Amino acid sequence: MHHKPALRVALIGYAFMGKIHAQAWQTAPRFFDVDARIDLVVGRDEAAVAEFAHTFDIPRYATDWRDAVNDPEIDAVDICVPGDLHAEISNAALAAGKHVLCEKPLANTAAEAEEMTRLAAEARAHGVQSMVGFSYRGTPALGVMRKLIADGRLGTIRHIRATYLQDWIVDEDFPLVWRLQKAKAGSGSLGDIGAHVIDMAYFLTGQKLTGVSALTETFVKERPLVASQGSLAATAGEGRGTVDVDDAAVFIARTDGGALATFEATRFAAGRKNAIRIEINGSLGSVAFDFERLNEFEFHDHTLPSDEAGFRRILATEPEHPYLSAWWPTGHGLGYEHTFTHEVVEFARAIASGVAPAPSYEDGLYVQRVLDAVERSAAGNAGWVALG
Amino acid sequence: MHHKPALRVALIGYAFMGKIHAQAWQTAPRFFDVDARIDLVVGRDEAAVAEFAHTFDIPRYATDWRDAVNDPEIDAVDICVPGDLHAEISNAALAAGKHVLCEKPLANTAAEAEEMTRLAAEARAHGVQSMVGFSYRGTPALGVMRKLIADGRLGTIRHIRATYLQDWIVDEDFPLVWRLQKAKAGSGSLGDIGAHVIDMAYFLTGQKLTGVSALTETFVKERPLVASQGSLAATAGEGRGTVDVDDAAVFIARTDGGALATFEATRFAAGRKNAIRIEINGSLGSVAFDFERLNEFEFHDHTLPSDEAGFRRILATEPEHPYLSAWWPTGHGLGYEHTFTHEVVEFARAIASGVAPAPSYEDGLYVQRVLDAVERSAAGNAGWVALG
Amino acid sequence: MHHKPALRVALIGYAFMGKIHAQAWQTAPRFFDVDARIDLVVGRDEAAVAEFAHTFDIPRYATDWRDAVNDPEIDAVDICVPGDLHAEISNAALAAGKHVLCEKPLANTAAEAEEMTRLAAEARAHGVQSMVGFSYRGTPALGVMRKLIADGRLGTIRHIRATYLQDWIVDEDFPLVWRLQKAKAGSGSLGDIGAHVIDMAYFLTGQKLTGVSALTETFVKERPLVASQGSLAATAGEGRGTVDVDDAAVFIARTDGGALATFEATRFAAGRKNAIRIEINGSLGSVAFDFERLNEFEFHDHTLPSDEAGFRRILATEPEHPYLSAWWPTGHGLGYEHTFTHEVVEFARAIASGVAPAPSYEDGLYVQRVLDAVERSAAGNAGWVALG
Amino acid sequence: MHHKPALRVALIGYAFMGKIHAQAWQTAPRFFDVDARIDLVVGRDEAAVAEFAHTFDIPRYATDWRDAVNDPEIDAVDICVPGDLHAEISNAALAAGKHVLCEKPLANTAAEAEEMTRLAAEARAHGVQSMVGFSYRGTPALGVMRKLIADGRLGTIRHIRATYLQDWIVDEDFPLVWRLQKAKAGSGSLGDIGAHVIDMAYFLTGQKLTGVSALTETFVKERPLVASQGSLAATAGEGRGTVDVDDAAVFIARTDGGALATFEATRFAAGRKNAIRIEINGSLGSVAFDFERLNEFEFHDHTLPSDEAGFRRILATEPEHPYLSAWWPTGHGLGYEHTFTHEVVEFARAIASGVAPAPSYEDGLYVQRVLDAVERSAAGNAGWVALG
Repeated sequence: MHHKPALRVALIGYAFMGKIHAQAWQTAPRFFDVDARIDLVVGRDEAAVAEFAHTFDIPRYATDWRDAVNDPEIDAVDICVPGDLHAEISNAALAAGKHVLCEKPLANTAAEAEEMTRLAAEARAHGVQSMVGFSYRGTPALGVMRKLIADGRLGTIRHIRATYLQDWIVDEDFPLVWRLQKAKAGSGSLGDIGAHVIDMAYFLTGQKLTGVSALTETFVKERPLVASQGSLAATAGEGRGTVDVDDAAVFIARTDGGALATFEATRFAAGRKNAIRIEINGSLGSVAFDFERLNEFEFHDHTLPSDEAGFRRILATEPEHPYLSAWWPTGHGLGYEHTFTHEVVEFARAIASGVAPAPSYEDGLYVQRVLDAVERSAAGNAGWVALG
Repeated sequence: MHHKPALRVALIGYAFMGKIHAQAWQTAPRFFDVDARIDLVVGRDEAAVAEFAHTFDIPRYATDWRDAVNDPEIDAVDICVPGDLHAEISNAALAAGKHVLCEKPLANTAAEAEEMTRLAAEARAHGVQSMVGFSYRGTPALGVMRKLIADGRLGTIRHIRATYLQDWIVDEDFPLVWRLQKAKAGSGSLGDIGAHVIDMAYFLTGQKLTGVSALTETFVKERPLVASQGSLAATAGEGRGTVDVDDAAVFIARTDGGALATFEATRFAAGRKNAIRIEINGSLGSVAFDFERLNEFEFHDHTLPSDEAGFRRILATEPEHPYLSAWWPTGHGLGYEHTFTHEVVEFARAIASGVAPAPSYEDGLYVQRVLDAVERSAAGNAGWVALG
Repeated sequence: MHHKPALRVALIGYAFMGKIHAQAWQTAPRFFDVDARIDLVVGRDEAAVAEFAHTFDIPRYATDWRDAVNDPEIDAVDICVPGDLHAEISNAALAAGKHVLCEKPLANTAAEAEEMTRLAAEARAHGVQSMVGFSYRGTPALGVMRKLIADGRLGTIRHIRATYLQDWIVDEDFPLVWRLQKAKAGSGSLGDIGAHVIDMAYFLTGQKLTGVSALTETFVKERPLVASQGSLAATAGEGRGTVDVDDAAVFIARTDGGALATFEATRFAAGRKNAIRIEINGSLGSVAFDFERLNEFEFHDHTLPSDEAGFRRILATEPEHPYLSAWWPTGHGLGYEHTFTHEVVEFARAIASGVAPAPSYEDGLYVQRVLDAVERSAAGNAGWVALG
Repeated sequence: MHHKPALRVALIGYAFMGKIHAQAWQTAPRFFDVDARIDLVVGRDEAAVAEFAHTFDIPRYATDWRDAVNDPEIDAVDICVPGDLHAEISNAALAAGKHVLCEKPLANTAAEAEEMTRLAAEARAHGVQSMVGFSYRGTPALGVMRKLIADGRLGTIRHIRATYLQDWIVDEDFPLVWRLQKAKAGSGSLGDIGAHVIDMAYFLTGQKLTGVSALTETFVKERPLVASQGSLAATAGEGRGTVDVDDAAVFIARTDGGALATFEATRFAAGRKNAIRIEINGSLGSVAFDFERLNEFEFHDHTLPSDEAGFRRILATEPEHPYLSAWWPTGHGLGYEHTFTHEVVEFARAIASGVAPAPSYEDGLYVQRVLDAVERSAAGNAGWVALG
């Protein structure tokens, strides 16, 4: 029954990120003009990856990512493993002529990201595409907000106010999972979630930060070692180890468009689960968003008479909104999962059309440079670090 | 690669409802302990149903629902066509020993629903299961609210306040689609969306209405005839026809638990897209919900000291919440689609376990009787109609 | 220092309502073009009324309301006592040529209200003004909403959805205060708070109800007798007495403009403190309000493109909004108290200009007739009771 | 009729601030155990101040503040003029043995504030009280939040997130009023509104900032000169002048309790009218507040089971809440004005009891030092400036 799809993808990784990418690849062709399918999944634990392949109806599995990179049946590689492996896999895959979708952050260090981006640019010259996985760009509400700004509806941007607030490690006895270890994760809240809001501010406004002044903090400096760890949970074992990444980061910045910006990323905002909040104020209007209510955003049109102006809650579920004509009637919301569906749609369409997709590795590198500047500023007692 | 699944389903219908059911059946086995698959899809337009089968990776298609009912390879039938066909298909399928999942409302008339329910009870005695598709029961937030009530956290229920507000026909020139025709749809806003909130009130509280007093109205009595109609949209042609269903219905009721209730269903609430709002007040607390923010609900615990009590916004995305342990980290919301995933999970699990699923045809019949009472009350100038 | 003001008022009553009226009369001349002052306060307990007069800087006090009515120094009488005394005082005061501001509801029975209104019309013909105290009309947000509707911004009204939700007697051991006794209060939640939303719907839309179908309920039928009672609180004594008023009332209605309406008044909505909620949907837009957030309302403009339409939160604190130019900068909200300031401003301005104030006794009588119809419908098992 | 009150106050200034203080002094004795009255008002324009005295029922007026300071009938001075006059008046009044309530910010420079505070401490040793007017401390919701934190309900504070957002000068042609001139106002958004949130963070948590890194910006550098100016509005004349204060300020900070903090003050947040927003996250819970909804706040109790925890909207209108037992029934909100009523109540009670009031001049000086550090950091390209 299965025809041979135009794009055959190898998925590297099958934990939380791999799972949601798998679901996205399954869903995309059913609702969008995308002819693609995961043909191979890679994971180190053979029994587990075999089970995953069965569950997600993926024809083949392997235990070494090199098998995917070297496989002539594979057109594209989707990298869903921790950041310490991104550079090696991406570089090899692009060299082998495979299109690459790489989860964010692009790399654990700016140096790696520089090299990856250089290689991606070379590959792109030969028609090999690459894209970094800032999945939240696939949120329809953000797409509408971006269009309002691009259309000039906010006028000159004055303020960007972005926070990414979580609370999963507020408990001091939450164990020392890989996301709290610098060797694996590169950084803490900054790279994991701060990266998203840095990209989001750029995606929405098209403006880049020209410098930052930052503070970071590790509130809980030792945590129980992990006894066992699944994709989304862990149990504590005996003994404690050192947390060597940031629990929270705050920074202020200027943009190349003359705006002032504030950013915050934290895993210590008790009660905030996935509060990606961004508000942008301009001379003609404002927009505001919170991912905890992902199907809506607010728009204030400052050109209306002041006695009837106000922040307007717009459900981003209209057929005119990005991606929505493929889905359900107005008011019937989408979920987190669909931001990934839209991400793979963008990637597959770009390959089909030969037009380079966004966000590019250059975009990923920009975010990496900001993360790097934030870390340097924080290390230097909030001193100003210029960018660009 | 495909193994023969434990449950082979025939999907009858492939428009809006068929499409979302197809996606639900695809997704369920990937995230839940469900071994099931759509094996056959039925639609009258052969080219269109073939295309649908291809898109959704369904092995076979047919143009006559009897093919599904008579097919020995089929274990269950999922009915996603308008209400005027429910009775005939359901009755035949159950007689043929197929489990049936039937979209709501169960039927277009109470008489049909009575007969369907009688036959379903007979079939159930022989291990053939049936379920009616009140998909909103699969919303995790509602599941948590139900548990709070079942656990006594609201005490004695005093008030139910339920509205289902849409606005897609506010424009007087919106055409006369099938949902506005009594012969096809049975009723208007009342049966289409009012049915959902009647079931929701029952699902949440376990209390049934003992009588109603109702008003209905058709605000726009003639509309343009339809030139062409897709699954979710239509264009107007020449001439106008008569709308013979209700545009809106309001009613008040008492419950068998001593509460007062108000209900409203309308397609004329400008700006409300899918505002399924329900608030329940009890002697010890209250809960409130709006489907336009489906990943959250509010809970007021009246047993707390009054100086720190208030409505608490709870994100229904915790692993302890219904269905959530199968999904993403806390705060990463689900969408409308997933209520259907959960619905087919319930259906498939019931068949696997031999325990009759909910909502049952009896539940569907209860809703049908309320709809019927509402129509009779409205026809009799809001006179009281008791429900037995 | 004090000059003799143009309008000398006698305040009858000094409990909760008297106190807030006193504050309103003190504040009005400081912020508005109103030259008026309370010259006399009347209460039966001499020590208490003397103390009140001292606190509120009122020159004189008396213990019999007839002293106010007969006093040539008094121009107007402000009636702030329970409803059972309204008719007698109002009728006498108007007969004596005093302008009258009478707290709502106008009377405890429709018959009394009819007579009061007849006498008020006669007095008005001689330049003696009268006004009923639906204080919420003085809420600026409601004034803006009313103007939007009067300007046609909502088009044809389709739905009115009004609730007044409180929770102060949810506890079954809350004592049997005068507001729970028919002889004093006339009715329960219906007359006390339901009256406000009936008036509010009329104030906003200009449409009257043409008939109602209603249910009322007394959830807690016996309560502890009162040991002692202040103006806003009470303590329970020994023994229990019968509650002979409604705890809650719900009703559906039609308006003379063709809209469907739902109303609810209850003191059993746990967690809702003063939730006067009203939403009105029309063919061109909608408005929504909740008194718990009195400084704002929502407006949906359905004539905007659907991809940027939504409910807009408008802070009713702009200088163009009713009464606001007299107050603080935008965004600096007013309180409940100021609705009364605005009420006495309207009353005093009407007397100064000779133009009859609103809401008139006729408006109060209309509300009384609706209350009466609701009670008759509820007594007749929700049967339809026509109005007008 | 008027008795001689225990506390006779001279009000210096009768513009926006003077007016709201006058109303506060009028209201306080009617609702609280405060025996005080404004006996004298001072303003340079004799006709205007005479009119004000008449309107607000103030027995006497003067045109030179020295008359108030030297008047033996005056017990206390309430300073409501721009910041450039604070030091001179306050110092003279305290020297003359008058209690002083001084509007914020304490002074236009830290040096002046130091001297004022030194003199205030000396005066306090002789029983002469002083207080700085951070009026928002009188907001009941903030009082409840403060108590929750003081009671340990938030545990260890991790984050403070404070913004004060306004939009009254978004229009580039809004004229160059005194608040935009350094000579008069001292600073722009920073001193005018930033000062409030700096104090608020301290008031709520009791923690002080140990250092800041800041950026400020003047987005619109030239504005039309003022033709005429009332207390709350102005019209533009010919020509343009230079804006020499900040339009916006952002800064990050650490506290002496180990928390990270972000602050923002701006007059360029289109659509935000008086959005004083503060959120505080601790190890056991969080609180959040927005002055645009001044009668409520949110509290998240992180010690509750995670499946029923969430931000709880608490109406700060319960009799147990600060100041509320003096006012109206629960749910009947207060306004901006009442924060000043509570301020003068605190001041008058402190004088009556002989216990020094809060916020003290030392508190005002702390805020002044933070403002000064922010300005120095911003001048030095966001370099870290340590405090304390």
